[in-house]
Amino acid sequence: MTVPNRISIVTLGVADLARSTAFYESLGWTNSATAPAISFFEMQGSILGLYEWSALADDAKVPAEGSGFRGVALAMNLASTDEVDTVFAEWLAAGATSAVEPHKAFWGGYSSYVADLDGHLWELAYNPYASLDADGRLVMGGLSD
Amino acid sequence: MTVPNRISIVTLGVADLARSTAFYESLGWTNSATAPAISFFEMQGSILGLYEWSALADDAKVPAEGSGFRGVALAMNLASTDEVDTVFAEWLAAGATSAVEPHKAFWGGYSSYVADLDGHLWELAYNPYASLDADGRLVMGGLSD
Repeated sequence: MTVPNRISIVTLGVADLARSTAFYESLGWTNSATAPAISFFEMQGSILGLYEWSALADDAKVPAEGSGFRGVALAMNLASTDEVDTVFAEWLAAGATSAVEPHKAFWGGYSSYVADLDGHLWELAYNPYASLDADGRLVMGGLSD
Repeated sequence: MTVPNRISIVTLGVADLARSTAFYESLGWTNSATAPAISFFEMQGSILGLYEWSALADDAKVPAEGSGFRGVALAMNLASTDEVDTVFAEWLAAGATSAVEPHKAFWGGYSSYVADLDGHLWELAYNPYASLDADGRLVMGGLSD
């Protein structure tokens, strides 16, 4: 197989593109899209896309109806437990909802979850067994063996 | 705000961790996790995680029930229309389901969608207005302005 190990874009379906774009901008991120129907935020190593929920479903030719848990969580790894606390508070200040308060996790790290305006889950975590490189990308012990 | 623009890990909930891990391994990717309950595939710029669907829901303290469209699509950008055709065929050979056959998209690119064993959608696309850097990361015209 020659399938590249590559996630270029993570696109989240949103109910109100302007509202959700403003939410992510309020985290300090910059929407760099040149088309009005989509927003793109350059991440460290990938791109976060926002697109109207029904348009995203239509793009994949699947019914737009959906409910409950989506089986997806995005993780933002941070450099310390203190940074988890700080960043968790900043997401809430921006209008995100707390799903799990910062706490010591069973796997030895420090974890929390927030949900964005459309219920997309982000884990905000510190993993003492992994490090972040100069660009903020996660380097896991097990992955670097 | 000091929230880093960072997606460290994209974790997908799966019904059968061993089966889904074998599926992604059959694309040529390497599971580097050292714990048995999770799989980690190092991507170009982020990490793809697989975790049992109900365990992922429990980690975020949300009900595990879910149905229909999940409002999330991962995009794998490729270097040419030919590579989209090739990689699309390889996903199907690995056991993925075709959602949208490769076709010229309204936005000027060439796009297709596959669903993995648990219905997670991946867009396989070529964007003539963007380029891939030496590491395969997407560089969008609008993003590099």
